[in-house]
Amino acid sequence: MALVVVGSVAYDGVETPHGKVDRMLGGAATYISLAASHFTPVKLVAVVGDDFAPEDAGLLAARGIGLAGLERVAGGKCFFWSGVYSADMNERTTLRTDLNVFADFHPKLPDSYRAEPYLFLGNIQPALQKSVRAQMTAVRLAGGDTMNYWIADFRAELLETLREWDFLLINDAEARLLSGESNLRRAAAKILEMGPHTLIVKRGEYGAVLFRKAGGTIGHFMAPGYLLESVFDPTGAGDCFAGGFMGCLAGRGARLSAEDLDFADLRRAVIYGSVMGSFCCERFGVDRFRTLTREDIEARYREFQACTAF
Amino acid sequence: MALVVVGSVAYDGVETPHGKVDRMLGGAATYISLAASHFTPVKLVAVVGDDFAPEDAGLLAARGIGLAGLERVAGGKCFFWSGVYSADMNERTTLRTDLNVFADFHPKLPDSYRAEPYLFLGNIQPALQKSVRAQMTAVRLAGGDTMNYWIADFRAELLETLREWDFLLINDAEARLLSGESNLRRAAAKILEMGPHTLIVKRGEYGAVLFRKAGGTIGHFMAPGYLLESVFDPTGAGDCFAGGFMGCLAGRGARLSAEDLDFADLRRAVIYGSVMGSFCCERFGVDRFRTLTREDIEARYREFQACTAF
Repeated sequence: MALVVVGSVAYDGVETPHGKVDRMLGGAATYISLAASHFTPVKLVAVVGDDFAPEDAGLLAARGIGLAGLERVAGGKCFFWSGVYSADMNERTTLRTDLNVFADFHPKLPDSYRAEPYLFLGNIQPALQKSVRAQMTAVRLAGGDTMNYWIADFRAELLETLREWDFLLINDAEARLLSGESNLRRAAAKILEMGPHTLIVKRGEYGAVLFRKAGGTIGHFMAPGYLLESVFDPTGAGDCFAGGFMGCLAGRGARLSAEDLDFADLRRAVIYGSVMGSFCCERFGVDRFRTLTREDIEARYREFQACTAF
Repeated sequence: MALVVVGSVAYDGVETPHGKVDRMLGGAATYISLAASHFTPVKLVAVVGDDFAPEDAGLLAARGIGLAGLERVAGGKCFFWSGVYSADMNERTTLRTDLNVFADFHPKLPDSYRAEPYLFLGNIQPALQKSVRAQMTAVRLAGGDTMNYWIADFRAELLETLREWDFLLINDAEARLLSGESNLRRAAAKILEMGPHTLIVKRGEYGAVLFRKAGGTIGHFMAPGYLLESVFDPTGAGDCFAGGFMGCLAGRGARLSAEDLDFADLRRAVIYGSVMGSFCCERFGVDRFRTLTREDIEARYREFQACTAF
C-alpha cells in the first residue's frame, strides 16, 4: 500500500546567509516524497525535462520512490526556481521562475498507481489536483496543499477540489486568506466546512496546529517548532512537514475519513511532520536526506517529547 | 512566604479592533500581581498619584495583594500610557506616555517586605532593579523583565543587575538584542552566561520557550500559545505570563537556584504563565481578573495538556 505524491520536481538556486548554490535538486514533490519515504512506499507523479540528472533520479530511486509516473519531456527543461533569503531567513525573494515543462503538466497516473489508498496532492492548479483525485479508484485518505495564488485567483476551482479532500495542509497566511478570518480558530472552523474534516496549519518556525472535526465538534492539537541551532536553508521544510505527516499516516494504514480514527495517530503524524521539516533545514536543498536514517528520526521524535511534555 | 513585585501601576488608554477604553487600571506590576495572586501571597512595590482610584486599590486588596509598598505622591499623577493596536493586534502604536510620578520612582521596600523569599522585578531602570534586590535579605529566587531601551542604552547597568538574577523573562526580540544572536538557542546560551541560569523567552501568540542551565548543559522546554477564539485586548498578557510563572513557583516554595530543582516545576510554571496570559486577552485591561477563579485556571491548564500531549 503506497502513497501517491503529485507535484513539482525542479531545480533550485538558493542563497541564504550560510551560502549559495546555483542549481540543486528541489521541487515540492521531491521533498514530500523523500520525507514520506522514511515511513511508507512512495510513488511519484511529476514532469521533468532532458536535463534531469541521472544522479537525482538515482537519489529518489535509492529511497524506493516509484518513478513510473515521472514523465520525461524530450527536448524540454525542468522547472527552475531561484531565490534569496533575508538575514533571519524568515523572508525570501524570488529571483527567477522558469516553469519550462511544468507549464504543461497534466498529471496522468500509471495504471500501477490507481488503486493505491493514499494520495498527497502538492501545490498545483486546483483543477489538475481534482483530475488526479478522479483517476484514483480506491482512495482511503486524500489531501494536499495549495497557495495564495490559487486561493485568490482560482477560488471556485479550488473550492470544487477541496470538497473531495480529507485534509488540507496550508500555512497560516493561506488559512486566513482562504477563510477571510484572522483568528486561527475561527479560520479553521470555516475551512472545515469546505470539505476537509482535518486542517493542518503550518506556522513555520513556530510549529503547526491540527484541527479536526469529528462528531460535530472541532478539536485541535498544537505542536511547537523544533528549535534548530543552525538553519542553513529553509527551502522545502514545509513540504518535508507534509511528507512526514502524510507518510506517517500512510505507514500506519490510517483511514482519516473514519470518525473513529485515533486522534493520537494524527498527533504523532504532526510531530513526525515537524521532525522532517527540522531535518530539511540542516543542510542545503535535499542534502540532509542523503544521510538521514530512521534512527535519527526516532531520536528527534523523542527529543520533541522531552522538550514539550509537562 | 510572599512574592514581592516591583514595577509600574498605571492608567492606560487602549484601542483595539474590539473597542476603545480611555482610561483604565494598567501597569506591569498590576498585571503581574493580579496573575500571581492566584498562586501565592503578593506584596506590591509601586508609586501612584492622588488620582489613583480607591476602587482600583480595592481590586488589588480584594486579591490579598499587600499595598504597604504602594507609595502615594501627594499632588502627583499616575503614570499614563495610551496606544492603539493594529487590525490583527500583532502591532501597537503608542499615542501617549506621561511618566508623571513614575519618573521619580525610587522603590523603597517596607521592612515587612525585606525578608520575603521571592522577588519579581518588573521592567524599570536596571539600577533601580539592582537597588531593590539589595534591600532584600533572604532571597531564595529573584528575577525579572527588561526591555529594548535598557538593553540598548543602559547595557552596562543591565549586565551588572542581571548578574544577581536567577532568571530573566523577556521576549524574543529582546533576547536577540541582548545576545546579538538571531538564533534563539544560541541567544539563550549567551544570555545564560550573563548570570541567570534560567531564561524564559516569550513569543507572543506562539507561546514561550524556557532554557535552563544545570550541570553544565542547557535544557529547554517549549510551550505553544493558547489559541483564543477572540483576543479583545493583548495589553498586559506578557506581564500576566510573568505573574503566572513566578506565582506558580513561589506558591510551590521553589528554590530555582538549587541545581536539583525539579524541571517539572519549571515546566508547569511556564504553562501557568501561558494560561494567565491567555485569560488576560479575553477582556479589556484587567477586567478578566474581576471574575477569574482558580477553577477557571485549572480547567485551562488541563485544556493545554489535552491540546499538546502526544
